[in-house]
Amino acid sequence: MKKAVVLLSGGLDSATCCAIAQREGFSLYAMSFAYGQRHKVELDAAKRLAAFFGVKDHTIVTSDLRSFGGSSLTSDTAVPKNRTAQEQADVIPSTYVPARNTIFLSFALGWAEVLHCHNIFIGVNAVDYSGYPDCRPEYIAAYQKMASIATKEGVEGNPVTIHTPLISLTKSDIIREGISCGVDYGLTHSCYDPSPEGLACGACDSCTIRMRGFEAAGVPDPTRYINRS
Amino acid sequence: MKKAVVLLSGGLDSATCCAIAQREGFSLYAMSFAYGQRHKVELDAAKRLAAFFGVKDHTIVTSDLRSFGGSSLTSDTAVPKNRTAQEQADVIPSTYVPARNTIFLSFALGWAEVLHCHNIFIGVNAVDYSGYPDCRPEYIAAYQKMASIATKEGVEGNPVTIHTPLISLTKSDIIREGISCGVDYGLTHSCYDPSPEGLACGACDSCTIRMRGFEAAGVPDPTRYINRS
Repeated sequence: MKKAVVLLSGGLDSATCCAIAQREGFSLYAMSFAYGQRHKVELDAAKRLAAFFGVKDHTIVTSDLRSFGGSSLTSDTAVPKNRTAQEQADVIPSTYVPARNTIFLSFALGWAEVLHCHNIFIGVNAVDYSGYPDCRPEYIAAYQKMASIATKEGVEGNPVTIHTPLISLTKSDIIREGISCGVDYGLTHSCYDPSPEGLACGACDSCTIRMRGFEAAGVPDPTRYINRS
Repeated sequence: MKKAVVLLSGGLDSATCCAIAQREGFSLYAMSFAYGQRHKVELDAAKRLAAFFGVKDHTIVTSDLRSFGGSSLTSDTAVPKNRTAQEQADVIPSTYVPARNTIFLSFALGWAEVLHCHNIFIGVNAVDYSGYPDCRPEYIAAYQKMASIATKEGVEGNPVTIHTPLISLTKSDIIREGISCGVDYGLTHSCYDPSPEGLACGACDSCTIRMRGFEAAGVPDPTRYINRS
C-alpha cells in the first residue's frame, strides 16, 4: 500500500485532505504541529481525526514558532474579526504566520524520507482563503521542485510529490467532497480564537470562511459557536 | 545597516560564514537549533561565537528532529568513522539528517520576514563535504526560488536572498578566508560524536574533513581531540 504523509492541523481542510488521500488508496501518516498556536485546541481535533481515519502513525512535532513571533496566531496580538469576503481577498491579515507552510512541509519532507514515502498531502486552498502566499499553486510548484532535489531519495531518483487536492476548490466544494468521503466535520476545529472551553468565535477569518462554506454547501455546520445554541 | 539572518551551528563553516556576512556590512541575527543532535555541545560553541561576533540577537530554536529520526545524528545509530576522502565523495553517510537544511532555512525564512530582513546566510559547502544533497548549488537555487514567493514580503516585491559564500570553496580555502577575517577557530566545534567532556573524536567525517582542511591550509588546528595532547 502506498504511504502518504498528510499534514493534519485538525481543521476542515486537512480533514478533507486526509479523506481524499485515503480514498486514493494511501495509508496515512499524519503530522501535526504544536507550534505555540493560540488555538492549540486544534491539536485535540487532529488527534480525534487521526483516530477517525485510522492512520498508521500520528506525529505531533513540537516546534515553537513563538520564538520569532510575527503573527497574531503566535503572539498576543489580537486576531482580526468580522472581515468581509472582499477584505479577505485583498489584505493578508495578521494571522499570517511567516513561512509556516514552508516549515511544516519541510518537516513532512524529512519524515517522508525516513518512511521511504514519496507522497505528501497538504490541504492548502487558494480560493476561499485569507490570501496567504504559501497557499498558492505557484508556491507549491516551487516547493515541489526544491523538495525533489533536497533529499537523498530525491537525488537517487525517487522524488516526493506534493499533493494539494483542495487547491482550486471553493470551501463549499471542499465540504461537499468531504461529506461524499464520509468526513465527520463535528470532529474538526477551525477557529483561530476559541473560548477557553474550545467554542468557536464565529468572527475570525477561519470561522467566517467556514460558516459561509457550510451555508453555500447547504449542509448544517456542526461547529459549536460562542453565543449560539 | 542591512540585516542578515545567519544560520550558526557552532562549526567551522558557519563561523566563517558569520565573519563574511559581517565583513560585507550586515548586522547579524544568528539562529541555531536544538534539534536533538547527539553533538549538542555545538550549541555552546554557537553561543561563544554569537558573543564573539557581537550579533544583534541569537535565537536558539528547539525543534526535535528525533521525532522522526532517520539519522545517526538524531538516533542511537553509530556515527560512521574513518571514511576515506573517496568514500566521503561517493556515499551519503548515516549522519545525513533528512531535510535538515530545508527545515533550518525555513525557520530562518520565517524569522527574516518578522525582522523585515531580506538576507539569509548559510555556510553550506559542496566541495569538502559528506555529499549531503541539501548542500549543493542546485538545491540552494531551487530553495531561493521557492522562498522568494513563499512570504508576504516576497509577494510584495521584497524577496529574500540566500547567501552561500562558502559553497564552492575547499575546506582549506574556508579556513584561510576565516583567518583573514579574524575568526578564532578555537571557539568552534565540528565533531559529530564528541566525548562527554566535549573532546572531538578525530574520526567522524566532520573531524577528518576539518583536520585535512587545517593541514592543507598550513594552519594549526586548535581542536581538542580525544587521545591527543
